[in-house]
Amino acid sequence: MNLEGFAIAIMAAGKGTRLKSRRPKVLHEIGGQSLLLHVIAAARTVVPAERIYCIIGHEAERVQKAVEHSGVGFVMQAEQRGTGHALQMVKAWFALKGGPVPEHLLVLSGDVPLIRPETIRMLCEAHLADRAAMTILTAVPANPHGYGRVMRSDGSRVAGIVEQKDLKPEQMTVAEINSGIYCFETAKLFEKLDLLSDGNANGEYYLTDVAHMLVAAGERVAAVQAESVDEVLGANTIAEMMHLDAAMRMATAKKLMAQGVTIFRPETCVIDAQVEVGADTVIEPYVQLLGATKIGVESRVRSYSVVQHSLIGDSVLIRNGCILDGAEVGDGAILGPYAHLRPESRIGEQAHVGNFCETKKVTMGKGSKANHLTYLGDAVIGAGVNVGAGVITCNYDGVKKHTTVIGDGVFVGSDSTLVAPISVGNGAYIAAGSSITEDVPDGALAFGRARQVTKTGWVAARKAKAAEKTP
Amino acid sequence: MNLEGFAIAIMAAGKGTRLKSRRPKVLHEIGGQSLLLHVIAAARTVVPAERIYCIIGHEAERVQKAVEHSGVGFVMQAEQRGTGHALQMVKAWFALKGGPVPEHLLVLSGDVPLIRPETIRMLCEAHLADRAAMTILTAVPANPHGYGRVMRSDGSRVAGIVEQKDLKPEQMTVAEINSGIYCFETAKLFEKLDLLSDGNANGEYYLTDVAHMLVAAGERVAAVQAESVDEVLGANTIAEMMHLDAAMRMATAKKLMAQGVTIFRPETCVIDAQVEVGADTVIEPYVQLLGATKIGVESRVRSYSVVQHSLIGDSVLIRNGCILDGAEVGDGAILGPYAHLRPESRIGEQAHVGNFCETKKVTMGKGSKANHLTYLGDAVIGAGVNVGAGVITCNYDGVKKHTTVIGDGVFVGSDSTLVAPISVGNGAYIAAGSSITEDVPDGALAFGRARQVTKTGWVAARKAKAAEKTP
Amino acid sequence: MNLEGFAIAIMAAGKGTRLKSRRPKVLHEIGGQSLLLHVIAAARTVVPAERIYCIIGHEAERVQKAVEHSGVGFVMQAEQRGTGHALQMVKAWFALKGGPVPEHLLVLSGDVPLIRPETIRMLCEAHLADRAAMTILTAVPANPHGYGRVMRSDGSRVAGIVEQKDLKPEQMTVAEINSGIYCFETAKLFEKLDLLSDGNANGEYYLTDVAHMLVAAGERVAAVQAESVDEVLGANTIAEMMHLDAAMRMATAKKLMAQGVTIFRPETCVIDAQVEVGADTVIEPYVQLLGATKIGVESRVRSYSVVQHSLIGDSVLIRNGCILDGAEVGDGAILGPYAHLRPESRIGEQAHVGNFCETKKVTMGKGSKANHLTYLGDAVIGAGVNVGAGVITCNYDGVKKHTTVIGDGVFVGSDSTLVAPISVGNGAYIAAGSSITEDVPDGALAFGRARQVTKTGWVAARKAKAAEKTP
Repeated sequence: MNLEGFAIAIMAAGKGTRLKSRRPKVLHEIGGQSLLLHVIAAARTVVPAERIYCIIGHEAERVQKAVEHSGVGFVMQAEQRGTGHALQMVKAWFALKGGPVPEHLLVLSGDVPLIRPETIRMLCEAHLADRAAMTILTAVPANPHGYGRVMRSDGSRVAGIVEQKDLKPEQMTVAEINSGIYCFETAKLFEKLDLLSDGNANGEYYLTDVAHMLVAAGERVAAVQAESVDEVLGANTIAEMMHLDAAMRMATAKKLMAQGVTIFRPETCVIDAQVEVGADTVIEPYVQLLGATKIGVESRVRSYSVVQHSLIGDSVLIRNGCILDGAEVGDGAILGPYAHLRPESRIGEQAHVGNFCETKKVTMGKGSKANHLTYLGDAVIGAGVNVGAGVITCNYDGVKKHTTVIGDGVFVGSDSTLVAPISVGNGAYIAAGSSITEDVPDGALAFGRARQVTKTGWVAARKAKAAEKTP
Repeated sequence: MNLEGFAIAIMAAGKGTRLKSRRPKVLHEIGGQSLLLHVIAAARTVVPAERIYCIIGHEAERVQKAVEHSGVGFVMQAEQRGTGHALQMVKAWFALKGGPVPEHLLVLSGDVPLIRPETIRMLCEAHLADRAAMTILTAVPANPHGYGRVMRSDGSRVAGIVEQKDLKPEQMTVAEINSGIYCFETAKLFEKLDLLSDGNANGEYYLTDVAHMLVAAGERVAAVQAESVDEVLGANTIAEMMHLDAAMRMATAKKLMAQGVTIFRPETCVIDAQVEVGADTVIEPYVQLLGATKIGVESRVRSYSVVQHSLIGDSVLIRNGCILDGAEVGDGAILGPYAHLRPESRIGEQAHVGNFCETKKVTMGKGSKANHLTYLGDAVIGAGVNVGAGVITCNYDGVKKHTTVIGDGVFVGSDSTLVAPISVGNGAYIAAGSSITEDVPDGALAFGRARQVTKTGWVAARKAKAAEKTP
Repeated sequence: MNLEGFAIAIMAAGKGTRLKSRRPKVLHEIGGQSLLLHVIAAARTVVPAERIYCIIGHEAERVQKAVEHSGVGFVMQAEQRGTGHALQMVKAWFALKGGPVPEHLLVLSGDVPLIRPETIRMLCEAHLADRAAMTILTAVPANPHGYGRVMRSDGSRVAGIVEQKDLKPEQMTVAEINSGIYCFETAKLFEKLDLLSDGNANGEYYLTDVAHMLVAAGERVAAVQAESVDEVLGANTIAEMMHLDAAMRMATAKKLMAQGVTIFRPETCVIDAQVEVGADTVIEPYVQLLGATKIGVESRVRSYSVVQHSLIGDSVLIRNGCILDGAEVGDGAILGPYAHLRPESRIGEQAHVGNFCETKKVTMGKGSKANHLTYLGDAVIGAGVNVGAGVITCNYDGVKKHTTVIGDGVFVGSDSTLVAPISVGNGAYIAAGSSITEDVPDGALAFGRARQVTKTGWVAARKAKAAEKTP
């Protein structure tokens, strides 16, 4: 959906002093991404990124850097002098930029991450249907104490917003609160912004005063209520954010279980919202599935494994404690326990990467195995290869990285060292304990190890010598 | 106990469409085994396996394969046309088989895994005591809505079963539900089965209609109530099964704590019901104890370790992240962190297997140590042996597996490779970095490494050469 | 604060039969230390250790050994014949020791670990203010059934303590219970101790009888109520202790979150009370921070890592599954996944210790890297060093440990073995696969590996030979 004529401003200039953190509040993370990115993601479902503007101020550069990949624009609010002041900056920015301003402006909070696209759309559509100058998103929490209350005159029409401290006795029972999320007819908003006063206790310009000005001017100010209170409430402490985080993850786990995925102890797993998992795949307790990860059907991820930005096929077994990042794993492969697959690891069908093995920028063919204590980096490995225990590709000479190429059906003996650049032909055999520095032709045997020397009686002789020395 | 004259039929032919899974519902797992195996285990406590029959249909072959090791029999219900139809298949099967039929038939559900042996026995005994033609197991859930209600005429005597949609206003308050678990006098059941009709909305044959026929024929139909509702309720979604799983594990953890085992964060541990742990053993958070595992007294299993089908002695320390499967570990041994003991690893008293070490089919004598980055496979290791860092037994030559034998008190220097088949005598000493390909006698020194060559000034020369090449 | 004139006796002689444990109850652990050490720690906040006496009896030696490092004294109660008997032993001990006895004696329970210093102080101060002979700490639990009830006559003044079984109907509603924690004027206590009788069902001497004697003698017996019931209740089962443990850890996590630390799934982390963590550091789920650990700001500890007794700088990244014990890690360093840093590992700024690497008694300079499958023990490593995959310091020759010294900017090729004692000069280069047994000068190349031999056609020949042998 694309709401024509709408732009979105996201309040992201505040510090969040209560968090006791140097990190700006909107950059705190839940569910695997910052609060602000959650809001931007919701905003992008209704307008394109180029019509979304983040109002930044506190640690502006850090905030901008953290979210600019999303394609949104930025408006600077160097001093933080209230919500009205923030939108004055937006007005000034549009003036500087020139050209037409968007007809409607939706204002979101960068620290209210659970806002749903459906709610944003509902608010905008109600705003249009009502032909309102301003539409306020409201909610009805269990305990409205402390929030500004929205006074309705008639139906959707708003008479005013009254802060807690200004409530008259008969208003105390009004439970509908102002969420701080609004739609404006931009021209009418901009007209009133210049009239705002900072003559209050905090010396700030408040957007709620615009509501009063519009009502006084006989303009239509409307209100619509969000379905759930949760989506309009921000988190004010780290502990509260952690609760939101757990709730988001659990919702994802429940969605996957409803699709036929078995997730043991679902409350213990950390699964990002965009992860896809096929039916009959089993996720054991304490597993983390992160980023753009996709897992096929009938696979199993054992406990303490972390799979990030990876594509996992069908009937794959990822044993305990594996760490995958940017890997591709073919159908029927078996990993771990404690395999570490780093970016550009492409593990073929039925291949095995076993315990205490690390791969990086490696292609491993069908059915090949590296099961014990190996480091494979910058390597192209064929099918049906057996890589012995402790084998190491020496891909770095202190200056550059080099590639190791291993043909099909090669046997690489244990504790061998392959000094790259190097190529081992199909069906070749490398003896255990060898340092291989020259290419090996197809079907050849290569070894590079010293002949064994055995000195009988040596241990007794050494002991006798040691005893001699001791006075 | 052995209920003479009883046979048990377990309904296991359904698909479980709501699970969105290709796996048949009865093969979904909780508490470490499939729903159906839980039911079979309960059934086997009252009759021997050869008098238990699983009625299979959907993915019959897969279900049979998954449980046939339990020794039960199977009756095929190729089409799934209702509970009555399932028992028609049982009748036909007995007819085909010939010989006498069991006097009584107990009918269980393969997807009701929490049914307790005590309840099964109580039902069967009540059935005998009442001399009933049919005895229905009932329960009283908090909310009976949706379940068929059992109408009692007098005491244990049942007047009929009324489905939710057919309840008369005065019957709405009846809270006792039909669990779908029954005992029958087999002859009377079989007589009525042929009279069942599929003239209903689903075109299925219902076992509840047998109750009505028996009542109409003046036969005694009785009901007994299960102590707990939980044991007769199945799980209809994966999320519900996960709840049952967590509840079963927690019950096991509580049982062990009451026996003197300390289990930190017991709700985070995954402990199979049959695991035995001695008093004063400490289980840290996030530990998994699986299968036929037994652990002695005063041992400690640190976090993230998984111990499966293993025998662990007294005062053993299993440090973080160890994976044991089919291992035996002697008193006072220390493992890990991150030791991987595969099947047939027999670790002696006071022996150590340290970080990033893997063992498979290995016997290690008293007080021997392999503490760092080793792979020990197919090896017999004596007592008091020191296996250095990075030592590898080369047990596979690309064709066969071979054995390494190491005597008592041997010192195996770091980064050595033992090319099997090979034997190292008592008290021998193997120099670091050696490839050992020939047997080493008792007390001998063996080395197999190249002499060091040092070229002074080489690094500066290389840099000068590289600088020359750069134009 | 130091309460002049006070000594503290801690009841620690009991067995705790209900725990089914050979370990004495007071040595069971929660929150990372034994129940008794928690009580001693609280006691030490009000009087110095030399005025604290643990009354020990059951497994006295084991209890003494477990806590004597705290500096407290011990009084032996060889037979356990009641709380009054325990203090008779204290009296006898003071008599034996000679010299003046402390004016006031505070009695604590070794199995009531949540007692807060504030409460102890409040009790002692009330005792002094009231000039009481005895002051009882009381509490008001939700359900007082089973506890001795404290009857007040007027204000703080106590008329008596009535056990559950002796309650008169009108006393049943008294909700204030005796915690078993008391202050005494020592002289008056000691005078009454000799008059105690064991003429009761259990044949024990009860301290509560002293209260009655003092009241009867017209002495002032007072009571003050603890703020929270929890702090005066002991744990009677292991399951209850596990609840206390989780509660203590969660309180610590909450405290840190309020200080600006992000702790995902705080209920899953195990954090000892004395751990310090700087703002904006992120702790992922399932992390353990133990002992005297301090972590700087803006660091991150990934899941399944355990950091114990270690000092971690700012902006450090500890990846998944690292185990640190007694390590120091400089700013900006990166560890793991699966790095194991043992005691006296000092990792410099921006240094890396990567997967499946173990360090012990190692100093590693700024920016040095050991990223794959290495064992570094007893080594002094300079700055800017690159340690290749699989490198091992052979620090043990079967008799002694020796040191490896590596200069700045050294390149240690993969799979090299450094046989200590050995020294590698600045800027030296060690070829992959080498065993280095002699010192390497600055800027030199050293290698110690066999030349490669390649036999073409060998694999085919071997197969032909094998085929020949097969009849």
